[in-house]
Amino acid sequence: MATSAPVSAATWLKDPSKKYLPFASVNLPDRTWPDKRITKAPRWASSDLRDGNQALVNPMTLAQKKRVFDLLLKCGFKEIEAGFPSASETEFQWIRSLIEQNQTPDDVWLQVLTPARGELIKRTFEGVRDAKNVILHMYNAAAPVFRDQVFGNTQQQTIDLAVKHVKIVREQVDAAIARGDRTNWQFEYSPEAFSQTEPDFAVRLCDAVQEAWFAGRDKANERPIIFNLPATVEVATPNNYADQIEYFCRNIKDRQHIVVSLHTHNDRGTGVAASELGLMAGADRVEGCLFGNGERTGNVDLVTLALNMYTQGVSPELDFSNLEECIEVITACSDIPVHPRAPWAGELVFTAFSGSHQDAIKKGFGHRQKDASQPWSIPYLPIDPADIGMTYEAVIRVNSQSGKGGVAYLVQRSLGLDLPKKMQPAFYQVVQAISERTAKEITGDDIEKAFRATYYYGPEHNGQFTLVDYSFATGADGKKTFTGTIDVNGEHKHIKGDGNGPVSALLDALNDAWPVGGSKQHHLSVKEYSEHALGAGSDVRAASYVQLVDTTTGRAVWGVSSSTDVTEASLKAVLSAASNAAVDAERRYSEIEDAVIGGRV
Amino acid sequence: MATSAPVSAATWLKDPSKKYLPFASVNLPDRTWPDKRITKAPRWASSDLRDGNQALVNPMTLAQKKRVFDLLLKCGFKEIEAGFPSASETEFQWIRSLIEQNQTPDDVWLQVLTPARGELIKRTFEGVRDAKNVILHMYNAAAPVFRDQVFGNTQQQTIDLAVKHVKIVREQVDAAIARGDRTNWQFEYSPEAFSQTEPDFAVRLCDAVQEAWFAGRDKANERPIIFNLPATVEVATPNNYADQIEYFCRNIKDRQHIVVSLHTHNDRGTGVAASELGLMAGADRVEGCLFGNGERTGNVDLVTLALNMYTQGVSPELDFSNLEECIEVITACSDIPVHPRAPWAGELVFTAFSGSHQDAIKKGFGHRQKDASQPWSIPYLPIDPADIGMTYEAVIRVNSQSGKGGVAYLVQRSLGLDLPKKMQPAFYQVVQAISERTAKEITGDDIEKAFRATYYYGPEHNGQFTLVDYSFATGADGKKTFTGTIDVNGEHKHIKGDGNGPVSALLDALNDAWPVGGSKQHHLSVKEYSEHALGAGSDVRAASYVQLVDTTTGRAVWGVSSSTDVTEASLKAVLSAASNAAVDAERRYSEIEDAVIGGRV
Repeated sequence: MATSAPVSAATWLKDPSKKYLPFASVNLPDRTWPDKRITKAPRWASSDLRDGNQALVNPMTLAQKKRVFDLLLKCGFKEIEAGFPSASETEFQWIRSLIEQNQTPDDVWLQVLTPARGELIKRTFEGVRDAKNVILHMYNAAAPVFRDQVFGNTQQQTIDLAVKHVKIVREQVDAAIARGDRTNWQFEYSPEAFSQTEPDFAVRLCDAVQEAWFAGRDKANERPIIFNLPATVEVATPNNYADQIEYFCRNIKDRQHIVVSLHTHNDRGTGVAASELGLMAGADRVEGCLFGNGERTGNVDLVTLALNMYTQGVSPELDFSNLEECIEVITACSDIPVHPRAPWAGELVFTAFSGSHQDAIKKGFGHRQKDASQPWSIPYLPIDPADIGMTYEAVIRVNSQSGKGGVAYLVQRSLGLDLPKKMQPAFYQVVQAISERTAKEITGDDIEKAFRATYYYGPEHNGQFTLVDYSFATGADGKKTFTGTIDVNGEHKHIKGDGNGPVSALLDALNDAWPVGGSKQHHLSVKEYSEHALGAGSDVRAASYVQLVDTTTGRAVWGVSSSTDVTEASLKAVLSAASNAAVDAERRYSEIEDAVIGGRV
Repeated sequence: MATSAPVSAATWLKDPSKKYLPFASVNLPDRTWPDKRITKAPRWASSDLRDGNQALVNPMTLAQKKRVFDLLLKCGFKEIEAGFPSASETEFQWIRSLIEQNQTPDDVWLQVLTPARGELIKRTFEGVRDAKNVILHMYNAAAPVFRDQVFGNTQQQTIDLAVKHVKIVREQVDAAIARGDRTNWQFEYSPEAFSQTEPDFAVRLCDAVQEAWFAGRDKANERPIIFNLPATVEVATPNNYADQIEYFCRNIKDRQHIVVSLHTHNDRGTGVAASELGLMAGADRVEGCLFGNGERTGNVDLVTLALNMYTQGVSPELDFSNLEECIEVITACSDIPVHPRAPWAGELVFTAFSGSHQDAIKKGFGHRQKDASQPWSIPYLPIDPADIGMTYEAVIRVNSQSGKGGVAYLVQRSLGLDLPKKMQPAFYQVVQAISERTAKEITGDDIEKAFRATYYYGPEHNGQFTLVDYSFATGADGKKTFTGTIDVNGEHKHIKGDGNGPVSALLDALNDAWPVGGSKQHHLSVKEYSEHALGAGSDVRAASYVQLVDTTTGRAVWGVSSSTDVTEASLKAVLSAASNAAVDAERRYSEIEDAVIGGRV
């Protein structure tokens, strides 16, 4: 049992054929589950406080258990496996406190686990005394790996052992009823490592357990039995588990009087699939933990299962509309993180860094804005993040692999500006230059800063030229005459010009005024111009975009501005562009970079 | 597109039926994949440097890319999607450097991705010029969500677009061949969001692509085409993907001349299952990333897929015998952690904290020690940790939920001592008391310290009584007489006594000597005694365990010792137990706790 150095590649690659046996499948060629789908929520049972807790490096304190318990209630769990009262005094007292302090609503079942051992069963019953609703969950070892290696029992001895202890449970329940205890009971039985147990033996064992539980009574009116069928360790592709569940459901006696429950682990990374296929195969109930806590690789992740259903239009009957709170409580109490790529809950799962993805998402949102009554269908987003209390903040993030669509999306989100398609590459170039220089993710905040600096957008960003005052006169020929004052690096300059409209009149005035403020001679003309409304109602503003070309050099520059007055917006956009034209490109880049990354590099 | 507060539970629980549509399954009642199993490794393609890289908050530097590339070679990948050369100058130069610096072995294919756009295809060919083996991977958007929302193309327009660009690829390949370039070529085509595309349309599209690629040549001898069928976003239970793959394999023209490749993502947590069922459904090849990196929830985790196969006796033809190195390289370069519960690779996946699990594992190892040629079958351990370069260190860890089996296992591992079953609860109580006081995990080191302190085991732990010298005489009646010196708190005391054997003779001497060293009167007798060999060969020692009962109080105490001499071992074990008997239980606890947790609390 010493530690061992890695084996050689040649050995490793050949080894498994000698060392590991393939899984022995059930023979079920007429299986029906592959044609089924999940159309309603199963009964859910949370094992966060039992399987989830026992597998923690630092098991939860009482206060943490209470916090998780309250969260589970809030999410809508009606069956909560709260602990293992016979395992330790701490566990016992925790269960007692839930009962004695009346912590469990009347429609919630408190589930407790016990091994099949007489004194531990009795201790468990002491633990749940006076609870309103109890699921008494007993397990014993059924799989050959346990029978042979751990207990040395034959199949028949295993059945006898199970039956003997079911009778003890039955006696305890009957005694409680005879005493007049107020408790409602369900009995749950887990043949341990069901998925590694011979399928026919699992059925025989459970049939015997069932007979011992019902003990000749009217099954239809008796306290129910749940057969929980654990993939204690996941040992095969998930279709095998579904076959086993379908086989069990077909062959167990009086299927209509028993509840079939799934309990999958994730050793092969297919615990969610196994539970989904198991439900298709006929199961009624699922046990698991939030975010897949639990022994080793964890139990099946109930958040994933529930949200998978939700996105198929099936209400999971669990409420994860505030997923952030679930993440916070569970990670704080378990000290196990949610992985950044964990389905639905990871911080990167709604994130698109790639340009083509960003572009598609942007178009999808545009499409949806036209008709939000359509079924949800946005590229790369299988759920509306808002449905789980997530913001759109994280959807598009920019790194050196991102494209102009994503950058434009972020500008739209932060400033409301819907950049003209022809303008997007220009600003994207700015962002990419910053991204390459820093070799880090560029945040939405960085992009806003870069945009404001690039286009002198907003009062704190003054270009070479700013508008002080102005007036227009319209001549008999319809020509506009611009007369106004512009501030050129702090000095006021009066300028005048004519044109077909305000923009061309201002440009004429500007072109007349060159050189100003130490800049060279320029001759600017309008190449692109567009505008759109910004905001709505009484706050509506106009956003204007102008691309100017310096005909002396061929250099094209953009300008942007917004104002409550559409003419003023266009004039300011012209001055924004002209300010860019007046400074050479290299100097502009370094000014912008300074504004964005400041002391960061 | 503002951020939104969580919706009310009532709304949330009813909402999905209005907002989300269930997935439209393929009609394939005669599917055959559920009866199949995976019996050989597929062709693997790593997308760590492409899909995996583009989804990082901070994409890899050149040096990090190189480190990952080298790791992939070491693991045995023969097809590596190294980048997206038309996307940026950085990507282009990275691909050039691999080729120009001859970084790719002759049996490895360099795969590069390009969108279906003429100028980008040409740029991509410039990127791979002079490479030895190239898989030119082109994608275009086939799913309705893209056709309708992003591109506004009909099915026929989508086919035309694909065919047009396949012809451009073909021309480039033909030109390279005509030029006499040394490159071997494969063409890979991905109909984007295959799993969201109408299955019959996907086939028609790929048939058209195939015809454009082969262009009337002899398919059997032509450069191959790979159809990569992405679950770009995972949108349904994994059986649906398998149905889609089987449908595609049945209906695509000339199945024998094409390669079917899987590319699953993990949005619903079933990416591994989808790839496994997809292989059963007839696919030849799998794309993915180590530890499931990639867009959003990541690509399928190739480590999990490969090790899943390995544990079924199928060589994955990838070498993960040094998994620790893979974890280190990938997490360092991606800055994305491997989750503690990630299948096979997470730090907790071989860990058992639960007492019953620990006990079963201990027995399983015991079983295996008797015959290691049997197929691997240890409870709760689906793989031999040594096979992936992991040590057994982590298998059993102790928290307040752990049992005596685990504690005994750790003692066995660190000290080689195989504690008698009856002794285990006694020492377990000590460990549990420490665990409850600290509310933290107890390490193997702590347990060793606690054991040494509890039983005065080892030279640095002296109890009240230690053996200085001794001799035995055997009388005519066979009785033994012990004559010797014991050190009692630093003072030597000569004692003498008789018995049937050495242990009873020493006890007789001790009982005569009470009270010694300030202790009260005791009368000790042997309740349990056992011994076993410790180590092997010339280093073999004897380990002795004695349980003494103080008949004056009924208190039972254990003692342990080991020695090269079996008699001496038993005498020292008696003194170890007697030292425990001489001090009251409360004081012993606090001495032991001090020894273990020192200044920690």
